[in-house]
Formats: sequence, C-alpha cells, structure tokens
Amino acid sequence: MRELIWDSIESVREKSPLVHSITNYVVMNNTANALLAVGASPIMAHAHAEMKSMVSICGSLVINIGTLDEYWVKSMQLAIEAANELGKPWVLDPVGAGATPYRNEVLASLLQLRPTIIRGNASEILALANYAGAVTKGVDSTQKSTEAVDAAHQLNINYGSVVCISGATDIIVDKGNEVHLRNGHALMAKVTGMGCTATALIGAFVAAKSEDPFLATVSAMAMLGVAGEMAAAQSKGPGSLQLHILDQLYRLDEEGFLARLNLQTRGNVNT
Amino acid sequence: MRELIWDSIESVREKSPLVHSITNYVVMNNTANALLAVGASPIMAHAHAEMKSMVSICGSLVINIGTLDEYWVKSMQLAIEAANELGKPWVLDPVGAGATPYRNEVLASLLQLRPTIIRGNASEILALANYAGAVTKGVDSTQKSTEAVDAAHQLNINYGSVVCISGATDIIVDKGNEVHLRNGHALMAKVTGMGCTATALIGAFVAAKSEDPFLATVSAMAMLGVAGEMAAAQSKGPGSLQLHILDQLYRLDEEGFLARLNLQTRGNVNT
Amino acid sequence: MRELIWDSIESVREKSPLVHSITNYVVMNNTANALLAVGASPIMAHAHAEMKSMVSICGSLVINIGTLDEYWVKSMQLAIEAANELGKPWVLDPVGAGATPYRNEVLASLLQLRPTIIRGNASEILALANYAGAVTKGVDSTQKSTEAVDAAHQLNINYGSVVCISGATDIIVDKGNEVHLRNGHALMAKVTGMGCTATALIGAFVAAKSEDPFLATVSAMAMLGVAGEMAAAQSKGPGSLQLHILDQLYRLDEEGFLARLNLQTRGNVNT
Repeated sequence: MRELIWDSIESVREKSPLVHSITNYVVMNNTANALLAVGASPIMAHAHAEMKSMVSICGSLVINIGTLDEYWVKSMQLAIEAANELGKPWVLDPVGAGATPYRNEVLASLLQLRPTIIRGNASEILALANYAGAVTKGVDSTQKSTEAVDAAHQLNINYGSVVCISGATDIIVDKGNEVHLRNGHALMAKVTGMGCTATALIGAFVAAKSEDPFLATVSAMAMLGVAGEMAAAQSKGPGSLQLHILDQLYRLDEEGFLARLNLQTRGNVNT
Repeated sequence: MRELIWDSIESVREKSPLVHSITNYVVMNNTANALLAVGASPIMAHAHAEMKSMVSICGSLVINIGTLDEYWVKSMQLAIEAANELGKPWVLDPVGAGATPYRNEVLASLLQLRPTIIRGNASEILALANYAGAVTKGVDSTQKSTEAVDAAHQLNINYGSVVCISGATDIIVDKGNEVHLRNGHALMAKVTGMGCTATALIGAFVAAKSEDPFLATVSAMAMLGVAGEMAAAQSKGPGSLQLHILDQLYRLDEEGFLARLNLQTRGNVNT
Repeated sequence: MRELIWDSIESVREKSPLVHSITNYVVMNNTANALLAVGASPIMAHAHAEMKSMVSICGSLVINIGTLDEYWVKSMQLAIEAANELGKPWVLDPVGAGATPYRNEVLASLLQLRPTIIRGNASEILALANYAGAVTKGVDSTQKSTEAVDAAHQLNINYGSVVCISGATDIIVDKGNEVHLRNGHALMAKVTGMGCTATALIGAFVAAKSEDPFLATVSAMAMLGVAGEMAAAQSKGPGSLQLHILDQLYRLDEEGFLARLNLQTRGNVNT
C-alpha cells in the first residue's frame, strides 16, 4: 500500500482537481491553502442558486458543519444532492457532533445522503454512530479508541462510508479492514482546524482517486501526518507550525515521505 | 498582583476552558489559534437553534460585533441571555462603536444585558459611553486617554462591567480602581484583529477565573502584551509578528513574563 | 511613470486611507493584513443598515464576489450605490466569473453600476466581457493573453473602468493604453487569495489617488509584484511566502522597489 499512497500524492499534484468545500468560517483560509499546497484547486461557495453548477465543475465535495446555520445547511443539502446525482464523491466532517441537538439533527439528515467518506475525531465518530451516551468536549478529541473504532465500523456498515478517526493514531476503516497511521505530532492539536484540513485533503485525494475512496483517505491522512511531523521538528510553537505544514505539504518528496510513513494494517489490506 | 496574574495564566493552561465566541469573520482563525496557544479551547457557532446548548457547555462567552448583521445580532442576544441565565461571564468587544448608527443601536441593546467585561480602544470606549460627540476612525484607536478613562469608569458604574481600554498603555478599570499595563509593541497595530485577540483571551481567563473578572482581564492583557513585545523583537514585519505571537503565547514562562511585566495600579489594588 | 508609482506608495503610507471591503470569507484576514501592511486601514462590514454610513467614512470601496449569496449581493449593491452617489471610487473583483450562471447574472448587474476599476485573471476578464464561449476553471487563471487584453479594452470602452488582468504579466488597460508589469513569482499562485489581495491594495491606492485610477492600479500591482518576488526569494513554500509578503509590503523601500520594477508601456504612457 505504501507505493500506492505515494502514487496518490503524485496523482493529486498532476491532476490538480477542483474541490468544492462548504466549510466553516474559521478554517476556510487554511484549508484553501492546504489544498493549494498539495496541488489541488479550492472552490468555496454556498449560494443556493449556484450549488448545482459549482458541483458539476468539481471533482469532489467537502461538507464541514463547523459553523452551520439554516442557510448553509440548505446549501450543503443542495450540493450533496447534486454530487450524488452526478456520481461525484463527497466527504463529511461532522465538527462538534454531539455538542448540541441541532448538530445531531443536521448530521442525521446528512448521513441519509450517504457520504463517501467521513472524518472526525473519536468523540465525533462516537456521537455520529450513537447519539445516546456520546459526549463531546466541543470539537476536541477524547480518545476512546476501542469504542470509536467499533462506531466507525458500524457507520461503514450502515452508510457505506469509509470512516476515518483522526487522533494520535489515525484509523481508517472500510469493509472490516483498518489502516492505522502513527505519524503527526501533538503540537498539531494546537493549530485550529487541523482536522478540517485533513478532511479537505481527503476531498482532494478522492477527487483524484475516485475509484478508491479508502486509498484516497489513507493517502491524505498519511501525507498530512508526515508533513506535520516534519513541520513540527522545525517549529517553536503553533504559529510557526501552521506555516511549516503548508511548506512541507508543498515540498514533500517520495524519499522523505516513505522513510517516515508509519503504517499498519488489519484485515485484508497489504502494507 | 503580579504573582496572581501568573497564577491565572497557569490556571488557563490547566483548566483548558471552553470559550464560545460569536465574533467577526476577519479574525476567527487568529482568535481560535490564540485561544489554543494559551491553553483554552475555542468554539465558534452562531445558529440560533444551538446558542443555548452551546453556551451551556462553555465556561464563558465572547461577543464581537465586527461583522454584525441581523442574524448574528440575534445569535448574540440568544447566547448572552443563556449566559446570564446560567451565571456565566461574557465579554463584549464593541468593534467600530460610533462608526454607524446601526452599530450604536446594537451596542445600546447589548449593554442592557450587562457585559461582565468590555474591551475596546479609546475611541470605541468613548463612543460606547457617550455617543454624542464621539468620533471613531473606523476600528482604529485614537488615543484620547483622559476622556476614555472617564468613560470607562462611567460604563463600570452604569453596567457593572470591568472595562479595558487597549492601546499603547492598556488601562483596566473597576470600582474606581485602575491597572495600567505598558507592554506590547507598536507593530502589533499592523496585525489585523489584535484587539479581537485580546478580547478572546479575556474570555479564556474569565472562564478560568470567573470569581475575579478584574484579575482575569488584567491577566489576559498582560499576557498578550508581554508575548507581543517578545514576538516583535524577533519579527521583520507584521507577517512574522502574527506567527511569533502565537509561538510566544504558547511558550511564555514565568521568569520571562515577570521580568517584562510593566504594571502600575491606581486605587485599592496591590501591584 | 516609475517615480509616480513610488509617490503613490508613499501617499498610501501617509494618508492611511480607510478602505471598505465587501469580500469573501476565505481571504478577509489576508486582505485586511495586506491593507495594514501597506499603510491603509481596512473596514469589513456588510449589514444592509450600515452600508451607506460605512461607505461615507471610507476613501474607497472594494467588491469581491468570491463567496456571494443573496444577502451579500444586496450589501454590495447598497454600498456601490452609496459610493456612486458620493463620488467615491470602487473596485470590482469578479471572482469565478463564468463558473456559474448565478455569478454571471450578479456580475452583469454590478457592471451596470460602472466600477472605477476591475481586476481579474484572464479567464475572469474574458468571462466578464463576453459570457458566450468563456470558460473558467474555477478561480484559477488560464492565460489567454491576446483575447483577454482585447476583452479588457472592450470592458474599458463599455463601462469606463480601468481593467487589470493579473497573471505572470499583469496588464493594466485604460483609454487604449496599456502597462505591462513583469514582477511577481509563480509561487504566489499557491497562496489563496493573492488576486483578492491585489484587488484590496488597488482599493487602498485609489483611495489615496482618486484623481488617477490608472496610476493607482498600476502602483498597487507593481508594489505587490515586487514585494511578492522579494518574498519568494526568502520562502521555502507557500506558507512562508504568505508571511514574507506581508513583511515585504510593510518594509519596501524606494531603492529596492525601483531596482526590481519591470514595467513596459504601450500607447500614450511614459515609462
């Protein structure tokens, strides 16, 4: 799988796919810059009147509910319906799942539209799979690894979505299989929207590799994890980390990437 | 007071309080990053349907009217009412007070809800205290020190709010007392939203020290001022300053902080 | 013209004009910081109730449709009408022109209000001049130089606007004349919103030099191009470039600027 991941990274750089993001205000600038840094082209738009046209010119759609409201939820629904009609992949980032009843209701309705891929932290994936008993501390991650992995498999069975739980170890789940990635650095949690950046990059990779959403998800998480850990080694704090991550995403080469990639698999996946 | 301020900084780092911000689009990313850098956890949300639930899980609420409109003003009112009901502190940043009649009307209505703390530049505090005759040049500060301090005491008497006038000297006012902080650097005015960052940090500190909003305000301003002046010494311009401030907020230690802290008091406050 | 350009740069620094921007969420922070770095003062506001008051205190208005929706389009129209009534210059950035019918309709209506200046990439200028047959790949530039220059002259004839096509060579067009600027660096295309920053800076320059929108446009583009190329020489990727551009805009001096300025003219313009 390691060589396939690098092939995906090169594929994004070559194809420069257009990614339509309906995301939260806090991270729009970062995620647009991250998409550019990996070689993709970001589009951010939300007017109802142009959702269908915008999706039609893009390779994938990213939905992030961080700063949702009624207008934006409608934008999301229109865009997802267009993506589904056109057979284009879409990625769901359930920011703050479990934090409020409104978020839970919106997420329940979005799940019915069957995301190609879901990425969240352990709390969010737990909340998404089973609202009863799920607790979220805002948008931060509480590692409840075992339950979250079970929840990810359950979401995969129910909705057909590849599911990624991000954290110290990123776990990507599909059809009973798992990939575990142990790259990244603790300081990344001190930069706002790092998870949202991960989701945006998944959007870029699945646009370039729409035939294999599982590989696309693993590739995006691997690239961000390795770039983040290289960036952290050069950084004195979260301010410099944010800058260095963009530089590293842009500069990452095969040798440096494969040397650092820490990947394990469970089930029917070759490493 | 100097040791109490450092205790507050450590308290934010230990408690990692959730801060709910309804703030302007321009600064969302920066203020979220600044909150993370000092050890707090940012939440940004504005949907009417979730304002009450969101406030209930947070330690404090920050209201910044920079890019207000009708929907967001309603969000602010719902969130403030929830905070007041639950006895949670809230902080008002009256961005652009005096610039337009609409802003003045909105601010007049928010003042009736009695902010725990108000932070603005001299022009904004003057405009807030007495719209007649107050002039603002957009969101920039015009130092009219004496009148602004009088205005701050008046706001404190009328609404019970701790009031902070930020500028070359930050002046924090409560119950006839004053703390004057002479840290920071002129280059900080060339980074957008530095005042909004100050307000956000006050939100973090008052969440961790809700029993003492005056100390919380002084502590937040002191931390940002010292971190900003350390960052400016390393910076070649406003771009690098923005980065270094986040790094310094994250790395600040007791020795470096207390060595630089420039604090005077007037009235019944120990230095 | 070279000395006049430097005079414009100094004029912005001295006058510190207020620029009212109604722009897209993705770039608000960057463009506000760029405006501060060149010495201007940014205002960002969109509430209908304050559009007229806000325009009345500003030196110019910048309209960028990147993340438009119905509410914001109305804000734009109200602000433009106020600017036109008050005889203040306004700048149009037709982000994504040609990407969707909705954008085209909105742009057609805004053109009727006769922008003082228009800045876009070649695709956007082509789409704006002649929707039939114009193709846009999202917000990226496709250099179709000759046709785009013809389109720029046509827009200038039809609406009286100075038109700037930005790209590897920036071309500014007015009354049959052209200025070609060959500064900048390819890495700038990997930072989101660099074109939006260009438009914002044009707003600052035309506020300081309202008597000469052509000179203002050339000056803004020249300053950003030279600062960008100096910044690129220090940068390891798009993350560090974004920071260094702000520093360079802030620090640029006459000698360094004039030594690098690469300017040609066609028609009745002195170099």
